[in-house]
Amino acid sequence: MTDEFPRDSVGLVAPQRLTIEQTLALDCGRELSGCEIVYETYGQLNATASNAILICPALSGDHHAAGYHSNDSKKPGWWENCIGPGKPIDSNRFFVVCSSNLGGYKGSTGPSSINPANGKLYGPDFPVVTVRDWVRAQNLLGQSLGISKWAAVAGGSLGGMQALQWAIEFPDQLRHALVIAAAPKLSAQNIAFNEIARQAIVSDPDFHEGRYEEKGTAPRRGLMLARMLGHITYLSDSAMRAKFGRELRDGKLNFGFDVEFQVESYLRYQGRSFVDRFDANTYLLMTKALDYFDPAREHSDDLAAAFSGILARCLVVSFTSDWRFASERSREIVDALIAAGKDVSYAEIESDLGHDDFLLTQPDYIELLRTYLNGIAAEVGA
Amino acid sequence: MTDEFPRDSVGLVAPQRLTIEQTLALDCGRELSGCEIVYETYGQLNATASNAILICPALSGDHHAAGYHSNDSKKPGWWENCIGPGKPIDSNRFFVVCSSNLGGYKGSTGPSSINPANGKLYGPDFPVVTVRDWVRAQNLLGQSLGISKWAAVAGGSLGGMQALQWAIEFPDQLRHALVIAAAPKLSAQNIAFNEIARQAIVSDPDFHEGRYEEKGTAPRRGLMLARMLGHITYLSDSAMRAKFGRELRDGKLNFGFDVEFQVESYLRYQGRSFVDRFDANTYLLMTKALDYFDPAREHSDDLAAAFSGILARCLVVSFTSDWRFASERSREIVDALIAAGKDVSYAEIESDLGHDDFLLTQPDYIELLRTYLNGIAAEVGA
Repeated sequence: MTDEFPRDSVGLVAPQRLTIEQTLALDCGRELSGCEIVYETYGQLNATASNAILICPALSGDHHAAGYHSNDSKKPGWWENCIGPGKPIDSNRFFVVCSSNLGGYKGSTGPSSINPANGKLYGPDFPVVTVRDWVRAQNLLGQSLGISKWAAVAGGSLGGMQALQWAIEFPDQLRHALVIAAAPKLSAQNIAFNEIARQAIVSDPDFHEGRYEEKGTAPRRGLMLARMLGHITYLSDSAMRAKFGRELRDGKLNFGFDVEFQVESYLRYQGRSFVDRFDANTYLLMTKALDYFDPAREHSDDLAAAFSGILARCLVVSFTSDWRFASERSREIVDALIAAGKDVSYAEIESDLGHDDFLLTQPDYIELLRTYLNGIAAEVGA
Repeated sequence: MTDEFPRDSVGLVAPQRLTIEQTLALDCGRELSGCEIVYETYGQLNATASNAILICPALSGDHHAAGYHSNDSKKPGWWENCIGPGKPIDSNRFFVVCSSNLGGYKGSTGPSSINPANGKLYGPDFPVVTVRDWVRAQNLLGQSLGISKWAAVAGGSLGGMQALQWAIEFPDQLRHALVIAAAPKLSAQNIAFNEIARQAIVSDPDFHEGRYEEKGTAPRRGLMLARMLGHITYLSDSAMRAKFGRELRDGKLNFGFDVEFQVESYLRYQGRSFVDRFDANTYLLMTKALDYFDPAREHSDDLAAAFSGILARCLVVSFTSDWRFASERSREIVDALIAAGKDVSYAEIESDLGHDDFLLTQPDYIELLRTYLNGIAAEVGA
């Protein structure tokens, strides 16, 4: 680690690659061959391989969860607030692993990768992947790293759904599941927001039925709208009020359709910067994975039945200002875990910023994670 | 009225037109000449012109508030639930007037009208209009009808904002203001939703900077997205759950991007049917009028000060499941009216359906309106 990075950062990191030799059988019935999983690790795996923590990314997250990719990078990984030396997920004690998900962009195999079947970009031919598909691929990564039991699997939002799926799918291969700002399945309203985002993308004339890369273009307008819409749902109304109020950018109404209110300026900026670093086909796949997540479906909508095989201890965390996946949704998980007789802790964090709080530094939240992870460290001798 | 219509409907109605001779000076500093106001009336004005009620439309509403436009029409006016013989706004007792707002579509002068200055369609050159501009135009309509004092001015959502503006602007020209499911100004989140709807429209390649009619096209994709997004905000999460749950249209996941969940099907239908009956430039103008409404702005953000001249008695109604303009927002109006020493009644209706409840038939709501309107009828001898 160079002196240029903060002392509590893992510093300079580089992604690694695992080629999966076997063919993956996906939930959709299709198969993927020659997949590559891109991942990063922080800290050292101990001799008994007991101190590994798997981090699962959310919709726009990838394998770069902490540290910096170059000496002059100003932008650390997406969970830099929580991962690093002395931080709650302490890289001095834990071996932290984070991989990007199948279907992602500029990481693990996805729509922008070459389809070995025909030598062309996958594009829209990339199969619809599920949270369970991801968890199975993560399990292969763990095996390749010599990890037979994770000290914990953790994630927020869509990442929290993966942590929950881990506990269901591989009950004896993790000690703890940290399920943060998640839900047991999307509500009709959640699906509706995703559907509008998808319609914004696919109705963009530059979408070309998903083959925009071949045409040297991209559905930038659609992806921008999708991201703007997402942003509204990540932020609480009160966070928006605190951040922007009804402040006018020029101090007065201009009676036109240029940016007037600060919040408009912010949204347009968020939308524009997203399209430079994200792929539209990936956005479609990620929203579908969200829509499809519903572990109770195979158990006649009985969530406790879906949880019946869980052995991991679960920590469920929600945020009072999160209206995308409100605390009620986390309590559904908690209630079903209790009904199934499982070991669960639940914390509802008083917060202001909405769904995005899971990435931020609310002191109670950070302290909760620190305490809980300290307990895990003691348990596994880390 | 023919036998073909329900007995409690005003039956067959026809829009009427008023050409405003004088030039209107708008809030934006521009002027409009030769404006036409399109309106409908139901019931009879009494000899003392004391029984007139003005109905103010919401974003997608127009002058057709009640009754039917033809004998084979199946679709009545937008507030048919409340207006008609024996209904809360009883056309046997009241003379009910509803005009479409300036900037509207297929009604009062708007972007699809001819600009007398150059003989071309206004299109994007139509000025940005405000709630106050509308209220002033409605006042000219009232004068032309011989109404010097309305028994009540009533509306929901954007219509409720007009009712409130009436009480501020023309204090001695209305007895009652019925402000339903409204807010004293939009929140940053409300503005953000409007901004995304606008961006969806203006980023549609068929928008042509608003001159799509001249090109024989329309930004249908953008307007469809805007409407879909609006719909999410009109419906409560629980209403969506009750209406659609996570029901799959084909009973199973199809692992593709066609419609899968019922809610997707519903939203696409709502979006598609809207573009056939609404105009994109009008949608832009209506959302701006919403964003700009903020009577406290001219009073250093002191809402009570903005209300200081009000003489009308106010009825404020909110719905518990409305998250677009939540009850808290109505209570801001009520608290400021009380602080200003005004006569105000407030009812928060237990409801399930969200913002759209103001158009629907929740029994407590209908009964409340009936009782309140009976009181007005007694007061004015109607």
